Amino acid sequence: MAYFDAASAAPLHPVARQALLASLDEGWADPARLYREGRRARLLLDAAREAAAEAVGCRADELVFTPSGTRAVHSGVAGALAGRRRVGHHLIVSTVEHSSVLHAAEAHEGGGGSLTQVPVDRAGAVDPAAYAAALREDTALACLQSANHEVGTEQPVTEVAEVCRAAGVPLLVDAAQSLAWGKVAGDWSLLAGSAHKWGGPSGVGLLVVRKGVRFAPQGPGDERESGRAPGFENLPAIVAAAASLRAVRAEAAREAARLRELTERIRARVPALVPDVEVVGDPTRRLPGVVTFSCLYVDGETLLHELDRAGFSVSSGSSCTSGTLTPSHVLRAMGVLSEGNVRVSLPPGTPAEDVERFLEVLPGTVAAVREKLGAPTATETVRAAGPDLVVDALGRRCPVPVIELAKVIGDVPVGGTVRVLSDDEAARLDIPAWCEMRGQEYAGEEPAEEGTAYLVRRTR
Amino acid sequence: MAYFDAASAAPLHPVARQALLASLDEGWADPARLYREGRRARLLLDAAREAAAEAVGCRADELVFTPSGTRAVHSGVAGALAGRRRVGHHLIVSTVEHSSVLHAAEAHEGGGGSLTQVPVDRAGAVDPAAYAAALREDTALACLQSANHEVGTEQPVTEVAEVCRAAGVPLLVDAAQSLAWGKVAGDWSLLAGSAHKWGGPSGVGLLVVRKGVRFAPQGPGDERESGRAPGFENLPAIVAAAASLRAVRAEAAREAARLRELTERIRARVPALVPDVEVVGDPTRRLPGVVTFSCLYVDGETLLHELDRAGFSVSSGSSCTSGTLTPSHVLRAMGVLSEGNVRVSLPPGTPAEDVERFLEVLPGTVAAVREKLGAPTATETVRAAGPDLVVDALGRRCPVPVIELAKVIGDVPVGGTVRVLSDDEAARLDIPAWCEMRGQEYAGEEPAEEGTAYLVRRTR
Repeated sequence: MAYFDAASAAPLHPVARQALLASLDEGWADPARLYREGRRARLLLDAAREAAAEAVGCRADELVFTPSGTRAVHSGVAGALAGRRRVGHHLIVSTVEHSSVLHAAEAHEGGGGSLTQVPVDRAGAVDPAAYAAALREDTALACLQSANHEVGTEQPVTEVAEVCRAAGVPLLVDAAQSLAWGKVAGDWSLLAGSAHKWGGPSGVGLLVVRKGVRFAPQGPGDERESGRAPGFENLPAIVAAAASLRAVRAEAAREAARLRELTERIRARVPALVPDVEVVGDPTRRLPGVVTFSCLYVDGETLLHELDRAGFSVSSGSSCTSGTLTPSHVLRAMGVLSEGNVRVSLPPGTPAEDVERFLEVLPGTVAAVREKLGAPTATETVRAAGPDLVVDALGRRCPVPVIELAKVIGDVPVGGTVRVLSDDEAARLDIPAWCEMRGQEYAGEEPAEEGTAYLVRRTR
Repeated sequence: MAYFDAASAAPLHPVARQALLASLDEGWADPARLYREGRRARLLLDAAREAAAEAVGCRADELVFTPSGTRAVHSGVAGALAGRRRVGHHLIVSTVEHSSVLHAAEAHEGGGGSLTQVPVDRAGAVDPAAYAAALREDTALACLQSANHEVGTEQPVTEVAEVCRAAGVPLLVDAAQSLAWGKVAGDWSLLAGSAHKWGGPSGVGLLVVRKGVRFAPQGPGDERESGRAPGFENLPAIVAAAASLRAVRAEAAREAARLRELTERIRARVPALVPDVEVVGDPTRRLPGVVTFSCLYVDGETLLHELDRAGFSVSSGSSCTSGTLTPSHVLRAMGVLSEGNVRVSLPPGTPAEDVERFLEVLPGTVAAVREKLGAPTATETVRAAGPDLVVDALGRRCPVPVIELAKVIGDVPVGGTVRVLSDDEAARLDIPAWCEMRGQEYAGEEPAEEGTAYLVRRTR
């Protein structure tokens, strides 16, 4: 069994386990109490805060522990916006933020605030100039992830923080994916993290608010965690989180180099081993352990299922793998292929042999899924119309519309068009992405009687 | 060492520890994922929900896990109020609710909602008729604890739920203190609980919303826990919480009887062993393990410190033991003495010998604290004024004003008055309580040049 989904949740680090066990006995009491069990709990809490603050690169009194990374983001965004409500109600986020940031942004918009979403390039990175352009007189807060959770691309946090600082706007950094690897550089104002992403236990996030940043906690509060995170402290888990962050950091430089080499193997060899694959995300400015690729003509859910059967646990941003009908917002924002999407995120310690075995298994698995999908698509309706063809893929889910397109493109002359009728949301992303990969011209979409018509002109 | 503060946080139950350890290995992955680690986590989560729901007495799909009891209360109150915002914005709570409920009520008032606080009797219980009288056309929600956290008094939840049901108003029950002992009876609509109160780990609360109750979760959400508790599930702790609730319940009947006998000993013997003590809370309708008493002429912080030195960890609602200047809102609402307040809350398994040892140690400890306090009060200013006396206790904290009063009451003739000048907030509660205990007449308060003048008439 190889677990390759560390970006969702990393297995518990041995140091976390050890610290958790020790503090189950020492740290269950209320740290606000004056008796010895309470004082002992207080000491543990203070020490954990010191350790976490040192790892993050902030003062201990700037850091509070929250019940999760998601709650850290929600509280951080709400508190920072409220702290600057006299300035205005404008919020800036990138289009590829984690859903916790986007949900906070939605809630802000729902409450009457305004929102600008800064786009990313095809590699998934924002342009600092785009943040500069988005800043307004009434901007209360800007948010940017340190690195993307789906494709691993690192964001230019230092540059964006500079741009924000110059405008007097605080920048909140969602550092969930990168804290294991090091401090977030740059002059940011707020930062959120999540322990189970670095090998700590679940149930612990952290929120840093730099001194001098206006911050007004929202919702009912209490006297705990500087009034920023109400509820009894999850102390054994907090101790384990801080201890494991420190432990992970001690191994970070060596492990980052090792994992980077392993993901580089995947980046380089998957396109050679598997035809019709697009590796996505920035090839160099990226997290060490994450590599993401999409496979044409593959149903993501089936692929994940087959990889699971072969002993590999990976994740996917394909629409076919989730309950929703839309592909990952990250892949959409990048404008890359979403079908047959696979994210490999290696936990620290992943043996090279596991990666080699994955590379052995993958080609056959993809080929088998493609073969399976080939059969039902033989019944497609193709209606000839001069030099142009219409493919009716209505009612068919990804990757069928693209498969149908690929099958008939050779039937029209160069200069001729294929019109793909589809009501699958993934087609909007995957048909242009296919054109890009195949060097064909994507001529746009238009509403059809049913669904949408996607126009592709054969250019070669 | 004897830990007598289970009402703050109970030590981890052995079953909780065992379940936590087992699920650290099995339950760290994302239960939303399709691969085997995810499916295993999902199975654990589903089983924990089933077990918790059975213990609470609800359907599994009515129960979500939250990061703490406090968060369960905050989310429950906010969601229930929002779900009925068309009906109105009136909220009813009792005056002795846990601070999490009162903080939620404050936030509601801060947002423009209206609030009625239902008073309690001297035993700390509400009257269902008072809830009935508080219900209005625009009442969106009523809240009532199942039992009080400071004095152990059980509330008439069944009767209040009936009254609310008749008016079509949902009742939210904060069951944090009683879930270890059994299901909450009555036709309530929402319920909140906290695992570390029943011997589960910290980091887990539960919120139950009965089918048919209008509920609109507030703040940013996600797809987890029915949209009612965003953030990655704290799975090992959730598993431990559910397992320990089941284990605690299996022992509940026997252990309740045993602890009730032990607290009954304290209730009966403390007034005999220690002069000038008031045992507070309902003598029969109460939690098995909680007993609370207040000692005249004692500084709560010093008493707690001395008891800690003697090996007993207890809690206090005296103002002197907290950072604030006001005594516990519960004791204030009950109108009982707050000075020298001690709450003993026995964890399951407390040996009878520990209680006996406490009863041996307490009289000497209280006497020593009283003796220590006796000295500095010799310098009090007593100004004779005919048959009346003025005691100037300005600038002195509790229990000094009451000590000064007690010292001079014998110096005025029956029918004469003592006027106590004090700027200590606790005096407002403790002077009337002293009169009640001593059979003297409390004749009211009036503003003085500095602080407040409290009038006491000697009647015997």
